[in-house]
Amino acid sequence: MDTIVGKQSICFQRPPQIVSAASVVGKKESEGPLGALFDEIESDPMVGQTTWEEAESALQKRAAQLAMQKTAELPGPGVPPVRYLFSGDLLGQLIATSFGVMDLKLPLFGLYGACSTIGEALMLGAMTVQGGYSEAVLALTSSHFGSAEKQFRFPLGYGGQRPKSATWTVTGSGAFVLSGSGGHAKITGATPGKVIDYGVKDSMNMGACMAPAACDTICTHLEDFGRNPEDYDAIVTGDLGVVGQKILIDLASERGYDISARHQDCGILIFDPEKQDTHSGGSGCACSAVTLAAYLLPKIESGEWKRMLFVPTGALLSTVSFHEGQSVPGIAHAVVIEHC
Amino acid sequence: MDTIVGKQSICFQRPPQIVSAASVVGKKESEGPLGALFDEIESDPMVGQTTWEEAESALQKRAAQLAMQKTAELPGPGVPPVRYLFSGDLLGQLIATSFGVMDLKLPLFGLYGACSTIGEALMLGAMTVQGGYSEAVLALTSSHFGSAEKQFRFPLGYGGQRPKSATWTVTGSGAFVLSGSGGHAKITGATPGKVIDYGVKDSMNMGACMAPAACDTICTHLEDFGRNPEDYDAIVTGDLGVVGQKILIDLASERGYDISARHQDCGILIFDPEKQDTHSGGSGCACSAVTLAAYLLPKIESGEWKRMLFVPTGALLSTVSFHEGQSVPGIAHAVVIEHC
Repeated sequence: MDTIVGKQSICFQRPPQIVSAASVVGKKESEGPLGALFDEIESDPMVGQTTWEEAESALQKRAAQLAMQKTAELPGPGVPPVRYLFSGDLLGQLIATSFGVMDLKLPLFGLYGACSTIGEALMLGAMTVQGGYSEAVLALTSSHFGSAEKQFRFPLGYGGQRPKSATWTVTGSGAFVLSGSGGHAKITGATPGKVIDYGVKDSMNMGACMAPAACDTICTHLEDFGRNPEDYDAIVTGDLGVVGQKILIDLASERGYDISARHQDCGILIFDPEKQDTHSGGSGCACSAVTLAAYLLPKIESGEWKRMLFVPTGALLSTVSFHEGQSVPGIAHAVVIEHC
Repeated sequence: MDTIVGKQSICFQRPPQIVSAASVVGKKESEGPLGALFDEIESDPMVGQTTWEEAESALQKRAAQLAMQKTAELPGPGVPPVRYLFSGDLLGQLIATSFGVMDLKLPLFGLYGACSTIGEALMLGAMTVQGGYSEAVLALTSSHFGSAEKQFRFPLGYGGQRPKSATWTVTGSGAFVLSGSGGHAKITGATPGKVIDYGVKDSMNMGACMAPAACDTICTHLEDFGRNPEDYDAIVTGDLGVVGQKILIDLASERGYDISARHQDCGILIFDPEKQDTHSGGSGCACSAVTLAAYLLPKIESGEWKRMLFVPTGALLSTVSFHEGQSVPGIAHAVVIEHC
């Protein structure tokens, strides 16, 4: 298969590998179904800092350092040092990232794909490694319930009720070191997504906003590679939640793909809606990133899964666009991860 | 020279070319020293839209379409269609970009590097083309005086005075199509920059905030490639302005490089501070992008300049980080553009 595949996909001829992954999460995430799997639990929501934003930056720094530390502990010839960072977050002007990665003293490619950011970072990181521009790169992202609520829903004091379609922003950070060899998971393909707008304006129903983008990217991916859903052990979206999942499965069915037996969603996996009052599921850049690091990637590394399609999803809104009455378009980036 | 060069640089072995460029600007920019050189002047600050943000989106869409239209008019075998977009802007959650590129129906890599964004887009675009992931890509960015003032300095009604160190956000958008051949300017190298923080907290003195990052990227670039400032016909920063230029030249001198004879700054080039009341200069993502498209690139294409170092600069702040008393770190990305 050529490097350029179909309408909008990439096939990696020399697949870069995910050689290490790190997940750092908050207390609520540690109490969810995946709680025992995360690398580090930070029970202080302020992470010892004075603001929510600094707290998120601290999470990002710790996840990055942990992922790089893990590569140093790998058996074998050793992974070359990380040369470039690909990172972003949800906050205006990426301040969690800017202040989080500063001490790492590495060149930064700042990314914004809303909650799809880790997909964008993994794609660009893999393109950079295979392209020979760097022997190792770090893909990184974060989100924080406190900083996200302040960014998008401030002031909280009004005490508005959260509808059942709302999601809960994950507090945490996920980090991945990519290199040419040394791991047990390889990135074999990617389908960068388009901005898709179905005109949904309900910012309390992100799943509905993002499901059309997820559908477009997944179906285009399957068409580009000439594959069926059954060619994947799992097709895992980022944070559609329970509400968005139903819409995605319906939309994909209309395009001729039954993904119901293969679909999972990080937002559904990470919280228990009955016990944790999280409604439709988890969200935020960290949602898919920490679920990949802690739960999905080990399944690929162990060989339990041979191939997965990882499809983080993002809702492209700001408080300004929302208050100006704009719709909430979505974007989704698909990354093929296989056992090796 | 290898692809991986020195501490943090890239040398392109098969340099991607800038095959077309487009610049769309507002009325004030059209009245500046470069006014006659821009492709399109939009005299309506609202660009026929109802909000500043929609206006900025409209500028981005027009610049993108114009750059792609220009490739269709090139003589010779023709440029392959653009497959991927690399774009970003200054607004929270990149809403100018999300709504601006939607109608283009192309996969989007959303970027945030503040006013350095076009440098990041050109680097990643060149990496994508040389890497064989796409035959042609579009690097794009925008800014708008109205949307930026609303984002960063709202409410304006207080009528606070602008100090002499302040800059004026450029209204406009710049777009560049990169492909393997077909142009007269090639991207031969790049030095992605680190987040650099000297602790400056004055958001009305962006030049001082960004000069240390510009210095770090430029000096590291020269060290990585073993070159001197004289190896470039020009070293052009993004939007340091008059105040930042002095600091950059001093800082570079401390690191052993006299760049005073080679240095120019898009922020200084684009406005006439005496006649236009712009104080230290222009700024915003569009500042360096439209100056490159309209003024710098033609000098390379004609052969008047053989080689330039294009170094857009970004100030990494948000209203949240500013109000929380954080400093304003900077970032700068360097792109080597040569005649061909």
